[in-house]
Amino acid sequence: MEPVIKYELIKECSQTKARLGKIYTPHGVIETPIFMPVGTRATVKAMTPEELKDIGSQIILGNTYHLYLRPGHDLIAEAGGLHKFMNWDKPILTDSGGFQVFSLGGLRKITEEGVEFKSHIDGSKHFITPEKSIEIQNALGSDIMMAFDECVPYPKDWHYVKESLERTTRWAKRCKDANKNPDRQAVFGIIQGGMYKDLREESARQIIDLDFPGYAVGGLSVGEPGDLLLEVLDHTMPFLPKDKPRYFMGAGSPDYLIELVLRGIDMADCVLPTRIARNGTALTTRGKVVVRNAKYSRDFTALDNECDCYTCKNYSKAYIRHLFNVDEILGARLTTIHNLHFLLKLMENIREAIKEDRLLEFRREFYDKYGYPNYIDKLKGF
Amino acid sequence: MEPVIKYELIKECSQTKARLGKIYTPHGVIETPIFMPVGTRATVKAMTPEELKDIGSQIILGNTYHLYLRPGHDLIAEAGGLHKFMNWDKPILTDSGGFQVFSLGGLRKITEEGVEFKSHIDGSKHFITPEKSIEIQNALGSDIMMAFDECVPYPKDWHYVKESLERTTRWAKRCKDANKNPDRQAVFGIIQGGMYKDLREESARQIIDLDFPGYAVGGLSVGEPGDLLLEVLDHTMPFLPKDKPRYFMGAGSPDYLIELVLRGIDMADCVLPTRIARNGTALTTRGKVVVRNAKYSRDFTALDNECDCYTCKNYSKAYIRHLFNVDEILGARLTTIHNLHFLLKLMENIREAIKEDRLLEFRREFYDKYGYPNYIDKLKGF
Repeated sequence: MEPVIKYELIKECSQTKARLGKIYTPHGVIETPIFMPVGTRATVKAMTPEELKDIGSQIILGNTYHLYLRPGHDLIAEAGGLHKFMNWDKPILTDSGGFQVFSLGGLRKITEEGVEFKSHIDGSKHFITPEKSIEIQNALGSDIMMAFDECVPYPKDWHYVKESLERTTRWAKRCKDANKNPDRQAVFGIIQGGMYKDLREESARQIIDLDFPGYAVGGLSVGEPGDLLLEVLDHTMPFLPKDKPRYFMGAGSPDYLIELVLRGIDMADCVLPTRIARNGTALTTRGKVVVRNAKYSRDFTALDNECDCYTCKNYSKAYIRHLFNVDEILGARLTTIHNLHFLLKLMENIREAIKEDRLLEFRREFYDKYGYPNYIDKLKGF
Repeated sequence: MEPVIKYELIKECSQTKARLGKIYTPHGVIETPIFMPVGTRATVKAMTPEELKDIGSQIILGNTYHLYLRPGHDLIAEAGGLHKFMNWDKPILTDSGGFQVFSLGGLRKITEEGVEFKSHIDGSKHFITPEKSIEIQNALGSDIMMAFDECVPYPKDWHYVKESLERTTRWAKRCKDANKNPDRQAVFGIIQGGMYKDLREESARQIIDLDFPGYAVGGLSVGEPGDLLLEVLDHTMPFLPKDKPRYFMGAGSPDYLIELVLRGIDMADCVLPTRIARNGTALTTRGKVVVRNAKYSRDFTALDNECDCYTCKNYSKAYIRHLFNVDEILGARLTTIHNLHFLLKLMENIREAIKEDRLLEFRREFYDKYGYPNYIDKLKGF
């Protein structure tokens, strides 16, 4: 049987650990490194699928926890799966629901069997096991399913993290075994281990031993400082096999995306660009622009004068500010288009830079205009 | 000087008083009869200009009262006018602000000079005169400006209505004289007179005497029963000249649009289709569909199986219901596209039916599926 998910390494960066690659999925090919817009509840907020494609989205996320609660995975299965339900024919990755169970759901109890939690909507009690998570993801029909794991918050003591990662490994095995559609849906493993280097290594060895077609680095970007995040990541990456895609869960600021790619990450996702868009903040080549600010009320220039997205080609800051000021839906639409376009274009530029052996130059030029992240002077290497 | 707005009567209906025509404006030609989507605050809610064009919008409305308060007409003038500010290059009609001053604003006092009112946003005091209304509309740069009038509520006594309509006539004259851009913006007159036939006639004669390039029938659809509306309209229409476009202010239900066209109306506008869309109600060939209803939760068919709009081609009731259920912006977008498409398509079908001398057949077939309005059996004629 052909593998459902295949990774092709096209080129290794001559300056960093970045990689240019392709991921083959049942719904098409993804060029990596890539940012994945998040479609929590069967829609990337404020966007149509056509708009997502227009700005270069190659793959989007769906959230198992949210879709399980509303409208229910059985309903989506009846609709013909998530692709058909939401009119998206390119690849979909679904998370396992683990992160939301632990962060949104009123967590009741973690046992070897699974997790008992309360719905954040109506307080109803639910029990999710690794098998249940995969059952839901099988019903959704995503190309890439994530293993059900415990994302340990920061900070947490060594003993807790060790116990948790070992359970996460046992759950990962159960997830793999539970997959009812191995011909068209694949499970990715998730490496945990908190901020402890020995535990990161242990988790990496255990998860990789189970042989998944792709691996996520989980449990980072959970509140720790940026330099610690990168230090733990730097320590973890060498354990990952070169012939599999590497996914960093929960990064969406331009600086994180750049730093992650430099360290060999191929895929990342985050609600940040769409969430701040709906609050009236735009990501631009000169840093963030809070377009709600009064100083833009008579600024008739584009959000970003170097941007060629639909929003920047047609609308001024003054107009967008007005839309936010009077609570018009079009405001959120225009900033969302811009922010997602900005990150997808950033990733395209990064791929180009890897190809042309000038990733470090690209990075410096980017930060010179955008501003350097506050953790950047602490960085070693590069 | 060429007139700014020119009406061409192409064909009179052989069965009714309906007319097929064209209105020439500085921003293009409008085929009539037409429905005009309302863009209250420099945006037709939830839509982009491109989406509006895709579904056949030929002209949209802007609201003088709202734009005067936020972001301010001076700001829009600085942006290059409303067309440029909101990225709409087809015709725009602006109302005079009169209706909103009387309905939304905390009305303080009507004098011969103008109207004092309080902003519905911050309670600030404002004074609008006919000259001020035109000054604002000149700043917005609309193709068609409306004369500042008093829209008398229903019911109201004869003496009040008579006094009011006579003042409205004097205001209409002042509006015409106040127009600073007679080379590119035209003022339409508005006929008032409440539900009194003698006063309708008086208002019509006075306003038409001022010789505007187009006339609106105002002060109807203000709470009176449907049969009374049509009775007053039937009485008023014969006074209107054939060589000028006729605009009915505030009608957006399919049955009203049909009945108005039958009586010789060329243009109509209303927030109804967009407002009910955002509440989860769709206009369809089989009547209204309240897609929020639980009975649609597993209905995987389109809102309207005879519709070929973007929404109906790609999404199911179950999906749209889910979007409303979890408060996703895409829900309002999809129903808005559908409802506006529905009305614009209805007007296109009406134009086709006039052309082919089968308007009454079209009307009967439409009502047979959509349902007859409750006032229809009281109708005389047709």
